[in-house]
Order: sequence, then C-alpha cells, then structure tokens
Amino acid sequence: MKKLSEIGERKAIQIISSFLSSNDKSVGVGDDCAAIDFEGKYLLISTDMINEKTHIPIDMTPWQMGWFIVAINLSDIAAKGGIPIGVVVSLGLPSNKSKRFLRQLTKGMNRCARKFDSYIYGGDTKQSSEINLCGTAFGHIEKDKFMSRKGINKGDILAVTNYIGGATAGYYSLKNNLNEKKVEKLLLEPVPRLREGKYLSEEKIVTSCIDISDGISSSLYQLKEINKIGFEINKKSIPYSPHLKKINEKINLDLYNKALYFGGDYELLLTTPYDKFNDLKDRLERKNIFLTPIGKAKQDDKITITDEKNNIKILPNKGYEHFIRQ
Amino acid sequence: MKKLSEIGERKAIQIISSFLSSNDKSVGVGDDCAAIDFEGKYLLISTDMINEKTHIPIDMTPWQMGWFIVAINLSDIAAKGGIPIGVVVSLGLPSNKSKRFLRQLTKGMNRCARKFDSYIYGGDTKQSSEINLCGTAFGHIEKDKFMSRKGINKGDILAVTNYIGGATAGYYSLKNNLNEKKVEKLLLEPVPRLREGKYLSEEKIVTSCIDISDGISSSLYQLKEINKIGFEINKKSIPYSPHLKKINEKINLDLYNKALYFGGDYELLLTTPYDKFNDLKDRLERKNIFLTPIGKAKQDDKITITDEKNNIKILPNKGYEHFIRQ
Repeated sequence: MKKLSEIGERKAIQIISSFLSSNDKSVGVGDDCAAIDFEGKYLLISTDMINEKTHIPIDMTPWQMGWFIVAINLSDIAAKGGIPIGVVVSLGLPSNKSKRFLRQLTKGMNRCARKFDSYIYGGDTKQSSEINLCGTAFGHIEKDKFMSRKGINKGDILAVTNYIGGATAGYYSLKNNLNEKKVEKLLLEPVPRLREGKYLSEEKIVTSCIDISDGISSSLYQLKEINKIGFEINKKSIPYSPHLKKINEKINLDLYNKALYFGGDYELLLTTPYDKFNDLKDRLERKNIFLTPIGKAKQDDKITITDEKNNIKILPNKGYEHFIRQ
Repeated sequence: MKKLSEIGERKAIQIISSFLSSNDKSVGVGDDCAAIDFEGKYLLISTDMINEKTHIPIDMTPWQMGWFIVAINLSDIAAKGGIPIGVVVSLGLPSNKSKRFLRQLTKGMNRCARKFDSYIYGGDTKQSSEINLCGTAFGHIEKDKFMSRKGINKGDILAVTNYIGGATAGYYSLKNNLNEKKVEKLLLEPVPRLREGKYLSEEKIVTSCIDISDGISSSLYQLKEINKIGFEINKKSIPYSPHLKKINEKINLDLYNKALYFGGDYELLLTTPYDKFNDLKDRLERKNIFLTPIGKAKQDDKITITDEKNNIKILPNKGYEHFIRQ
C-alpha cells in the first residue's frame, strides 16, 4: 500500500474528494474554499493549517505566525471575490510555550483580521508536541459575483495582481542572512488580496480566479486540470517584484525562475475574455488595483512558457507540495 | 514568564479572548461556538483540533478518528440548538501514513457528517510530524431559538440528556483490555446530540446549554463562571450509564466518581425554569429524548454535590484540561 510520501498532497486531496458525499447545494468543486447556498447567497468557508516543522520559517515571530494563519485563510475568501465575516482558530501548542508567545500570537491574528475588516470569532487551544495552527475563514458573496476556478474559455487573457516573487526574495534573504527586513516581510506577512478580489468580482467578467500561494506554475496546472484547457505564458510579461532583482543581484541565483515555482505570494491569478481585459484593467487601475496580462488560455492541453530568448518550452509542473520532499 | 503548562487551557483561552477585538455582531462570549448575526439568523461556527499524542487513544481506528473530529465539532452546534450545514477539515498527517489510512479517515468523517444530515464541504491535507486533525463545523439557528451558555436564574433546574459515564466505561475497558467493544465505542464514536439540541431549542425555555465533553464538573464550573451562580447537584440523581456498572464490577474502581470528571460523553447539560421543567421533560419524552434533573441553580457561588450518604460537599473542579498534566 502506497504511503502519502509517494502520492503527494494533490493526489491525497483527490482521494479525500472521492470518498465524500456530494451535495448540490455547494459549488466550486476543486476549490480550496467551499461555497454553499445559504439564504440566497453563497457562504464561503476555507480552512488551512500550518505546522512548525513543515511551514513555519524559523525566523517567524509569534506575532507573524498569528498574522500568517489568518492571512492565508482570508486569501481563499479573496480568490472567490468574497466579503470576509471572520476567522476561527484552533491553536495546537507545546506546553512549554510562554504566556508572552500566546499573547503575541493572538495579537498578530487579531491585527490581520481587523486590517481586513473581519474579526477573530473564536480561539481554542490544544496541547500539541509542536506548533500547529489551524484557521478557518468564512465570508459571503452574492451568487452572480462568485469567482470560481472553473469557467475559462479558449483565448481568455491570463493576468495576475500586483507583483510576483516578493516571497521568494524574502525567503532567500532569510536563508542568506541578508537581513532585508522589508523584503522578508513579504514572505512572513502575506497580504490577502481581498480588495482586489472584491473589485474583480463586481465586474462579473472574471472566468476563473485562484490565489498563487503554491506558485504560478502550480496554480496554472490546477486551473488546467479543472478546466481541461492549456495556457501560454510569456516570461517577459511577468511583473516580477522589484525586490527580487535586488536580492538576486546579491546572491546571484536565478530567482526569476525560482519565483515561478516558489509560491508564498498570495496574489490572484485570473482569466477574463480577451476583448474585455483592457477596459477592466483601466477601470481597476483607477482604484489602484494593478493587473498584468501574462499570457492566454489555449485549446490544447499544455502549459508553455516563452523565455527571454523567445524559446517556447513546456512549463515544469513544480511547486510547493506537501508530503513529497522538496 | 509563565509557561502554558503552569496556567492551563482555560486561562490560555482567557488570554486569547482579552487580546481579540470584540464585535457587537456576535453573541455567546465564552462559548466554544461563535454565533454571528448573518442575514437575520445566527451563523454558528465551531472549531476543534485533536492531536495524536494528547487526544487520540492508541486503539482508535482511522475511521473512528474521522468520525470523532466531525462529531466533536457538531456537538458544539448541538449545544446551541443549531441545524448543521457542514464541516471542513484540515488534516495534518505524517508522510508515512498509507493511502488506506487516508481512505478510512475520510470515510469516517463522511459517515458522521451524513449521519447528522450535513456534509464535509472541504478537506485539506498538510504534512505534519504527528496526526493533527482540525475540524470546523458550521450551522445556523433562528435567533429566538439560540441556546447560550449564559442566562441561568436562581432556582433553575439543571438537567442532562441520556446517560453519563459511557465514555469513562469505554476508557477503562480499553485500559484494562476488557474488550467490551460496544462500551469502547461510547468513547471512540461519540454521538453529537443534534436532535436533542434542536428540540430543546424549539421549546425556547432553556436558560443555558453546554456539552459535557470535558466532564460534568468542568462544565458546571464553566457555567458558574459565566453566570456567576452556583449549583447543587445530587449524585443519586445522575443517570449513570448501565455500562458503567458493568465495567465497574469488573475492575472495582470508583468509576461513578471518575465519570463526574472524565468527560467524553458529549451529552447536553442544560437549565430551565423550575416550573417549566416537568412539562418539557414530558414533551421531549414523546420524541424519545430523555432528560434527567440532577440538581438546581442557587444564589451562592459554590457548586455542591450531595453524595450517597447525604453528605454535602464541594464538587471538585476537575476535568480534562490541556497543558496541565493529568
């Protein structure tokens, strides 16, 4: 019998899905965020867990852990275009942690929730041999504004919000002791793109949306699988974070490549019909929301990337995946 | 600076609460289950985590772990009188677990959700060095039916649903290798009292309700703290599980006493006005729901128990508490 280490997280989630009863009151199969028909709207629920050994960088402060567990759950609400209501958390903590640790953790959670106009509605603690934080965010959205992961048509424009690679830059700053605190914050204090998600959803022309928490490549392969459609992206179009350049110069690694697979950015990756994109981009710019087209959806079932030398290659399906050793 | 092992779980939750922004859209402060004003109803959300080392008995099968994480979360919805909508789960699993383990775990979760007319709306997996399961149940209730933990008046009758001590009996059967499978199931496959909660809430006369997952004693002390009121209970009135007698005879321990502090029963402990209790009891009996009065609320701030010899003693404030070694 195969172990989880041999099958990986995505296959594990497929196994889970195959044994769950389905229900016609929910939409968004394959989404990280459940959307349930409730009182004429969709109730949105998303849950995510982080773990000391596998997810929490050693330099993350307790305040940042609190911020992080709330932010990553709100990000799933953002990707649907939802309005957050609140977050509940279960904190698995070793008994040798201090009261101060718990206070800072709680302050970080509360700060992130309040920053995005929501609340922490409950916190439970459990004894655990390592730090294990589980958050559940819930929100709502009008049905006609809901952004699914499914609905892409051939020719749709593929775009991302803001910049890519800030979290990668932060990771390598930490790893190489570059002490670039501002850059490291991009990794340790991610920003859920709730404002972007809200305005995008109000346009009602987004044909799919996902956050890129596991990296652009991983998110594209997820969209491909759900939509049975391929993509062509152009490396030169990708809005790399200015911080990536700075860190790259210092350590001389190909961070621009790494940023495609690294994840941690929590930007939104979305598609819209080709002929509606430019107007959308202009309207959102007036709200200080920046979209960059990075490619388009195509009929065949491949994901290609055009590199700096105009060579077209298959984009490797790499990204953060649990159970399988990186 | 004090460690969590010195302050215990209840104090830890107080620390968390003191650093969270409060919100007038929610009710039920001190509840395990958040109730949020949403579309004219209360949306109910409860989250709970279990952990291999501290919560999962060694004899628990993967199917039972799945049942358990769903059941204990639905129990918090039950204690409010709520109608469950569904459950989402985050599964922290070691990478050496098998596909079969994951399948059985998922089947157990799904079975419990379907048994109580709800669904598992999402399941995420994360790599973890030990089994860590986090569930979040959500449901709803009309505002005038909501059962809070707060609202007890002097003289109110204190009652419990069904039997007490089945989980204690199961634990000691396992511990002593008595192989009483049916009894052990009372510990390993708890039943959330959703039907009981629903009918109780419809009566609109319940002045407080809580599940006794941490033991009767612990639940009474929680109600005392929230309501600033004491209780007197009568040991002879407690509806001990018939299984407790059976196991007690075999191992000759004072399980009747242990059952007051052990927890794991997931029955509901509730209060109603004195003069309305008997009619309520009769009406619920016609629906095959059994309530037993075990005492009443009193003005002073103590919890007393009248024992078999009619001696009145202070009920010790003991029960399952995390962080502090049992």
